[in-house]
Amino acid sequence: MTILLSVTGFQPTEWLNALQERAPRRAVILEPNSANDASVDYAIVWKQKPGVLAGLPNLKAIFSIGAGVDHILRDPHLPDVPIVRIVADDLTARMSEYVVWRVLDHFRRGMAYRAQQAAGLWHDRVQPAAHEMTVGIMGLGELGRDAAQKLGVLGFNIVGWSRTEKTVAGVESFYGASGLDPFLARTDILVVLLPITPETHGILDTGLFSRLKHRTPIGGPVLINAGRGGLQVESAILKALDDETLMEASLDVFETEPLPASSRLWKHPRVFVTPHAAATSNAQALVPQILAQIDAFERGEELQHLVDRQAGY
Amino acid sequence: MTILLSVTGFQPTEWLNALQERAPRRAVILEPNSANDASVDYAIVWKQKPGVLAGLPNLKAIFSIGAGVDHILRDPHLPDVPIVRIVADDLTARMSEYVVWRVLDHFRRGMAYRAQQAAGLWHDRVQPAAHEMTVGIMGLGELGRDAAQKLGVLGFNIVGWSRTEKTVAGVESFYGASGLDPFLARTDILVVLLPITPETHGILDTGLFSRLKHRTPIGGPVLINAGRGGLQVESAILKALDDETLMEASLDVFETEPLPASSRLWKHPRVFVTPHAAATSNAQALVPQILAQIDAFERGEELQHLVDRQAGY
Repeated sequence: MTILLSVTGFQPTEWLNALQERAPRRAVILEPNSANDASVDYAIVWKQKPGVLAGLPNLKAIFSIGAGVDHILRDPHLPDVPIVRIVADDLTARMSEYVVWRVLDHFRRGMAYRAQQAAGLWHDRVQPAAHEMTVGIMGLGELGRDAAQKLGVLGFNIVGWSRTEKTVAGVESFYGASGLDPFLARTDILVVLLPITPETHGILDTGLFSRLKHRTPIGGPVLINAGRGGLQVESAILKALDDETLMEASLDVFETEPLPASSRLWKHPRVFVTPHAAATSNAQALVPQILAQIDAFERGEELQHLVDRQAGY
Repeated sequence: MTILLSVTGFQPTEWLNALQERAPRRAVILEPNSANDASVDYAIVWKQKPGVLAGLPNLKAIFSIGAGVDHILRDPHLPDVPIVRIVADDLTARMSEYVVWRVLDHFRRGMAYRAQQAAGLWHDRVQPAAHEMTVGIMGLGELGRDAAQKLGVLGFNIVGWSRTEKTVAGVESFYGASGLDPFLARTDILVVLLPITPETHGILDTGLFSRLKHRTPIGGPVLINAGRGGLQVESAILKALDDETLMEASLDVFETEPLPASSRLWKHPRVFVTPHAAATSNAQALVPQILAQIDAFERGEELQHLVDRQAGY
């Protein structure tokens, strides 16, 4: 009945408190008592120390506390137990907020109006209607589908692309390698919510940007990446911005995080940088969902939202 | 069958083209042929020259091409014929876009993150969930109700205030003078979509700001005014920002437009200025709606969206 909470990169105090408060009859530990601690039944992890899960003989499942699971899979000594992605309304809502916020800020010409304000310039820009714009979403999982629905409420056309065929109400969907070009040719604002896998690593490169529309109702195309930094080639983003293949970008994730001080992305006037903050995992919102899964599993039900290790997400 | 298109402040070319294209059998003129031109049946106006409508003996109705009608009512020689507000999906959608954009930019700490980016600072801010925030909307007409619905989709709590009692699904509504204090006491982000009338002139003043919440989940309260500049006392906004009664503001309208170069609002780091561009009237979208009203009126139907001159909107 012991839960191992194994995280690196931040203090797990809020998660520990939330677990102890909501699962008072379970023991929660931050380190195994030994390399082959038989008491640990479940692990809740964020970038666990490599190998920490390898020797636990009674480990039954690993739960991710972020939307992606690449931080778990990179462990070369990962035991062969089920891995559960977090799917939670709170996390999904935060990501859709970020996406709608960034789409509107680019669409309504926030960067241009802020520059005009700094120059004391009163001048209204030509503003297309939402139905004249097409937002293309790469990744049609929980996050992509929710963002599509909320952008649809605002009147945008939505197209989507995913690795395998998906049907989403109100979204014209493309899939696979052959679907990428027609998807990009339709896209005015590109929103990236892909998982990082060997197939998607570096997918946001010069070749991809060159296949986006050159002219869009607001000028040129826009890139919004809230997936993973490994999806993007930052030198290609800078080149595309400089030669106007891309008009503007909002980036929440980076090849190296924190974004190094030397990166030109910090100062580029047409880039908006946030510190991997699009959708932070909130312990109070997510711990109950993880505990509910554990309770259901112990009643004999199947675990939901299992990771496909072959696909990498 | 003649339509007088009487506007000042901008070139009416797009409106003239749209009217001629969509109503080829009607004559469209930009000035009456004489002070008492009997040929004019309808006037489509934006800030008409005072008195221009006074002597037209056969004028049957006046149509506004903006959401407000204060620009029509200020004419001291306005004839006593029906005045029709524009109510159009295109205009409503544009205003809701602006409102959702500005609410999200303040809620997701756009100003703070842009300042951090300029300083090269990687630091994620505490981010409340949307359901922890209350957006208070002043004005529950077509625009306020649509904005409320779209903010509701994103999970915000919505309260509303209007002059007379209104029932809006999903909105806790307050009304009249006695309803203002409880409305303000609930509000984290104040969105103003009121018409300008003698009652609402200067309503956004020091007294009102002091009755907003002092602490909100993102710090302090935020003002978003997309109604009319006459609603706000700009010296009071600057004072409230400086003494932190207000944390931030987005202003699309101003006491004097264009906003004078001398205004401190241009340079205030916690103010976002747009040049009365929240919801611009699009001729291609709005002309068909005005012509449909004229056609219906000529078939004997009643005009819709009539202005109540006593109320002033």
